[in-house]
Amino acid sequence: MSTTAPSAAILAIGSEMLGPLRQDTNSLWLTGRLEEIGIPVVRKAVVGDDPASIADELAHAGRFARYVFTTGGLGPTADDVTVAAVAAWLGATLSRNEAFLEKMRARFARRGFEMPACNAKQADFIVGARVLENPRGTAPGFWAERGGVEVVVLPGVPSEMREIMEESVLPVLRERGGGVVWRRRVLRIAGMGESAVEELVAPVYARWKDDPVTILASPGEVQLHLAVRGAPDSADARLASMEADFRSVLGPRVFGEDAEDLPRVVGRRLRERGWTVALAESCTGGSIAAMLTDVPGSSDYFLGAVVSYANAAKEGFLGVEPETIRRFGAVSPETALAMAQGARDRFGADVAASVTGIAGPDGGTPEKPVGTVHFGLATKDGAALTKRRLFGGDRAVVRRAASVQALELLRRFLSGEES
Amino acid sequence: MSTTAPSAAILAIGSEMLGPLRQDTNSLWLTGRLEEIGIPVVRKAVVGDDPASIADELAHAGRFARYVFTTGGLGPTADDVTVAAVAAWLGATLSRNEAFLEKMRARFARRGFEMPACNAKQADFIVGARVLENPRGTAPGFWAERGGVEVVVLPGVPSEMREIMEESVLPVLRERGGGVVWRRRVLRIAGMGESAVEELVAPVYARWKDDPVTILASPGEVQLHLAVRGAPDSADARLASMEADFRSVLGPRVFGEDAEDLPRVVGRRLRERGWTVALAESCTGGSIAAMLTDVPGSSDYFLGAVVSYANAAKEGFLGVEPETIRRFGAVSPETALAMAQGARDRFGADVAASVTGIAGPDGGTPEKPVGTVHFGLATKDGAALTKRRLFGGDRAVVRRAASVQALELLRRFLSGEES
Repeated sequence: MSTTAPSAAILAIGSEMLGPLRQDTNSLWLTGRLEEIGIPVVRKAVVGDDPASIADELAHAGRFARYVFTTGGLGPTADDVTVAAVAAWLGATLSRNEAFLEKMRARFARRGFEMPACNAKQADFIVGARVLENPRGTAPGFWAERGGVEVVVLPGVPSEMREIMEESVLPVLRERGGGVVWRRRVLRIAGMGESAVEELVAPVYARWKDDPVTILASPGEVQLHLAVRGAPDSADARLASMEADFRSVLGPRVFGEDAEDLPRVVGRRLRERGWTVALAESCTGGSIAAMLTDVPGSSDYFLGAVVSYANAAKEGFLGVEPETIRRFGAVSPETALAMAQGARDRFGADVAASVTGIAGPDGGTPEKPVGTVHFGLATKDGAALTKRRLFGGDRAVVRRAASVQALELLRRFLSGEES
Repeated sequence: MSTTAPSAAILAIGSEMLGPLRQDTNSLWLTGRLEEIGIPVVRKAVVGDDPASIADELAHAGRFARYVFTTGGLGPTADDVTVAAVAAWLGATLSRNEAFLEKMRARFARRGFEMPACNAKQADFIVGARVLENPRGTAPGFWAERGGVEVVVLPGVPSEMREIMEESVLPVLRERGGGVVWRRRVLRIAGMGESAVEELVAPVYARWKDDPVTILASPGEVQLHLAVRGAPDSADARLASMEADFRSVLGPRVFGEDAEDLPRVVGRRLRERGWTVALAESCTGGSIAAMLTDVPGSSDYFLGAVVSYANAAKEGFLGVEPETIRRFGAVSPETALAMAQGARDRFGADVAASVTGIAGPDGGTPEKPVGTVHFGLATKDGAALTKRRLFGGDRAVVRRAASVQALELLRRFLSGEES
């Protein structure tokens, strides 16, 4: 490691995570929170509920990292051996905490149950370790030290693990860190390919080559991850000018930052205008409506959608003229626009968007290959526009990219960038 | 480990997987394929692109496992150090393979490019290692041995990694395994809670306690994972009787097995009857339509859906009487049934299903708390049914569980189990 900051290792404990079905995800959250306070994660491991493997990994990880975070294995069953294994590695004993046991019994009693005998072991505390209270669950965490390596023992239940970290661990580490932090910003762009974004930001990219910038692409969306490390104030300032620099070339192509997703941004734009929206979806099959209505409170502006898979549905529900479909085809700008206008009129919406295309694997022709998608948009004051895109990838990718593109078309229109 | 079979460790190499954004997923696939041939995975680790960390982890993992699989770090950039690190650990040298280099150059030339100089290092082969050809990419894999530990070096690109495993690695390991295999079966159940399923299978569960059975729950679905280890024939036979035993108590509650999902099963039932389907969705916001149309070829039976978020849309598009909504409420069996009948009539479908409910976080009342969902179903020959469910969890969980429940209602009806 090029950094001299103390680093961390993460050990997820649980035999189920060594099978093909369950994955450790706690480490992603932990990594993010530790990075923010300047502690890089240098290794991650998963071992089964096996005392020898746990002890071995603690010893091994301790050679690379100042902090070792364990998650999982604090439950009441015979499988759960983390506390005993950590104690053994520390050379510490366990001691049953009677006051804690009493509290556990009382909690069960309040819910009308008798505490199962096996739960008692969750009151076995590691002698000499700091006990980390678990407000959301039964099993507490522990924080102990051996030979300069600190072990933080956390539950595997994500909400419990997070609360203990936020309440009892991160504040201490932040204090110790003397104020070295990571600051991050994600800039999100839709409706552009990865290489087009890359080309656009290349000159800026070169100016900030000392700070890590990562470009990540998913169907329909490209994200730029900016990161800066330093004292809080200077890191904030540097990140701000870095962000401004990238935004100066990306302009309004950035639809949101960090966790701000497109359905939320579209919803906010609609609220700002006091507008309602309706959709007419063909190849996206209801996905755009599902995305928009994922947002709590979306019923304030979302009136509804017609998923018009069959041509008869395009005619019956949206008033698309059979002649339009016959002359131009179901996948055409003309049909897309008629669908949008029909949705606008029949839902009585201020704006409506439509999608019709060929998601595949079948249905493509030489003139309209799989991945061809037409978009339409119509407003109550008569604005109308269409757009055509050709997406690569399989059915799922085309559907996803088309859904994102439709939302992006709405966003740009509502922001006054597209007309 | 209680098993005497040779075991495996997996090492994912790549600094990006030590950040909060990217996770190793290759290990899940590898774990599944190795288990099938009787090789359990006993540890997984992630380290950065750092020769010392890679060598240390190889040494450490080799103490627990006969096979160590590495993924990643075979690219052409300076970051990619896996091959050199593995060679160093083996005590082997690297030798540039001129014939391979020529092939690489030719491949670039065919696409009209000159090969960048940095790519040349992908022609550096580990002396003494078996070279694993990579039909889908540039960088080959390697298979080498030191002190009884075998290291299999694989690319990080999933499709390349999988092809090399399937073509060059798994056949050899299968042969060596002398025929000890794992056989697995997943039984999938919808519309029942985890504890209800558990109660139902408890007596069967007890009969098969020597074989691992796992119950996994996700919103709306419960899965039973059965697994048996042994010689292929006897494992097949044992798994078959195990499955029959579980099915004897679960009966038609099992909607599918292994990768068979509910939208596919519903699609198959519709095809069998030669029926078309339409949907009327309120709180699920288009999710059911999106799930059904995820299936390629679904346009053969799926006519369309109305997402009627606004009451006016329930009336205008589905012909629900305003009086019905006024008297019984938008979330009621009466409105649900009227929605289904309206969708059936207006799409001209053989069967239609509807959902109306309160996904939250707002909109709940003491009589109709958040999570209350009503389902309706109507067919062209006049069959009609409704169902009410109360789901726990947040907005996303309620929407997901309600979508699954609607599909399960359709499935049971189409299978003649519900009328």
